[in-house]
Amino acid sequence: MTVARSPAAAELSPDELARACADAMWANDHASKALGMEIVEIGPGFATLAMTITTEMVNGHGIAHGGFIFTLADSAFAYACNSRNENTVAAQGQISFIRPSKLGAKLVASAREVTRAGRSGIFDVRVSSAGIVIAEFRGHSRSIGGTLVPLQQPDQR
Amino acid sequence: MTVARSPAAAELSPDELARACADAMWANDHASKALGMEIVEIGPGFATLAMTITTEMVNGHGIAHGGFIFTLADSAFAYACNSRNENTVAAQGQISFIRPSKLGAKLVASAREVTRAGRSGIFDVRVSSAGIVIAEFRGHSRSIGGTLVPLQQPDQR
Amino acid sequence: MTVARSPAAAELSPDELARACADAMWANDHASKALGMEIVEIGPGFATLAMTITTEMVNGHGIAHGGFIFTLADSAFAYACNSRNENTVAAQGQISFIRPSKLGAKLVASAREVTRAGRSGIFDVRVSSAGIVIAEFRGHSRSIGGTLVPLQQPDQR
Amino acid sequence: MTVARSPAAAELSPDELARACADAMWANDHASKALGMEIVEIGPGFATLAMTITTEMVNGHGIAHGGFIFTLADSAFAYACNSRNENTVAAQGQISFIRPSKLGAKLVASAREVTRAGRSGIFDVRVSSAGIVIAEFRGHSRSIGGTLVPLQQPDQR
Repeated sequence: MTVARSPAAAELSPDELARACADAMWANDHASKALGMEIVEIGPGFATLAMTITTEMVNGHGIAHGGFIFTLADSAFAYACNSRNENTVAAQGQISFIRPSKLGAKLVASAREVTRAGRSGIFDVRVSSAGIVIAEFRGHSRSIGGTLVPLQQPDQR
Repeated sequence: MTVARSPAAAELSPDELARACADAMWANDHASKALGMEIVEIGPGFATLAMTITTEMVNGHGIAHGGFIFTLADSAFAYACNSRNENTVAAQGQISFIRPSKLGAKLVASAREVTRAGRSGIFDVRVSSAGIVIAEFRGHSRSIGGTLVPLQQPDQR
Repeated sequence: MTVARSPAAAELSPDELARACADAMWANDHASKALGMEIVEIGPGFATLAMTITTEMVNGHGIAHGGFIFTLADSAFAYACNSRNENTVAAQGQISFIRPSKLGAKLVASAREVTRAGRSGIFDVRVSSAGIVIAEFRGHSRSIGGTLVPLQQPDQR
Repeated sequence: MTVARSPAAAELSPDELARACADAMWANDHASKALGMEIVEIGPGFATLAMTITTEMVNGHGIAHGGFIFTLADSAFAYACNSRNENTVAAQGQISFIRPSKLGAKLVASAREVTRAGRSGIFDVRVSSAGIVIAEFRGHSRSIGGTLVPLQQPDQR
């Protein structure tokens, strides 16, 4: 009897591998799911995620709490820097808040790799809403060993 | 007939004013409340907030999503930089993640003023758990005019 | 008698204006000149400067002191953010040192505008040597009023 | 015959060790010396350096080029993070320019350790002039193995 199996990393194109890494992360990513995020685009070294500002994300000024804008950017960063099948974590993030964002606004965060050297990387994320820049984020990543998708399938008999 | 009234800013000590500013912000701060934050301490130029890591704040690695740690630090920053009764917003935040934090951990974020000049300020926030440093945050604030607590009471007859 | 005069800003193309702004800054920029910098390229929102690491820029490890790499990036940033004829200063700079740089290396710093809103801007600068990335810099600018090149010529009779 | 020898690290108090590390770095620190810096104070996890703004550090606005302010802060950071006899380098630096500084001003940069974890550290540096804050710097360090002062003396016969 043949069992269904998910393909090993070695059998995938870079685009397919990025998607498989994202799927593996997403399965357990309670935080991003609970905030209503969705993965719009994923590829080697980049990722775009979207999220809509709910009443629970709004502060006393009636605008989105900066922490949720950061969280969206940080998630986009995480999916981008894990897209090459190396377990990678955020070491730092810096965000500049350019314009406020209101209840109901759909935010889109696009992350792209700026540079990598050794185990360290730098990724930039632009957060925008209806084409207007809301925030600019720069993250520093560090790979910690291990893969998200198995490199090879175990023997199957 | 005398009506109950809240005191004007001019009648308050700096400590009382910081508390009154925090109360005014907290009333509408859906975001911080929805995440289960509490204000532990508040005073002129400083604030300490606490939050417990819930399942909805955890990512696929079983550790707290950095965005929620940032959000806690950002809230402590907001209460500290609004404690002198000048409406102030976050222009930027930079966070370094020092150690991971797990489900159920109680995080404490202590914000203090580093320097102010004109309308700009710098605040540092240390996030710790059981006395261990989890993250270090530096925020840049900008005052935007207006007060949180009225400076004077309207005429009462 | 007609006197030679430099053209007013209103008579220049964006590229010519960027060059005129750079010339006006360079005339008094003792710091960049003393370090042996040269302007390689200049245009609206971007600038590329180069500098060679001398013995006086080297620290005890035999590598370039990070301060001089920052200084080159900061100069490129300054020429880029002043290229539209608005007096603009650096409010902040953040630099990540990716690889060390040695005595005699020629560093090239390319600055480009990331975003602008109101009086604030963000610029990224990549510092490289022989095509290898040495450092990544992100600067925050603030325009302070006034122009580098006169908008109009005074009446001449 | 007995030869003069410098003491080994194991024979020194933390204060003496910090001084010995500083002396070892200073001997080859052409960059800091060429800029006229002096070490005002040194100890475990902290360092204060001073520098006077010369004509070669001034830009077209007649104020100190931010790069030299960064360089002073970066040197104070370097002496502070190398004060425990572990070879340590700057991975990053972030500087906020609070007020301009003029020709002839004496700048004092005081660095102190904020936190350390594993091979990484965070240090804050305040740059002031006549007691007024000029800039605030935050640096991220990384220890790279090896010592500045030998741990033990070689056998002497």
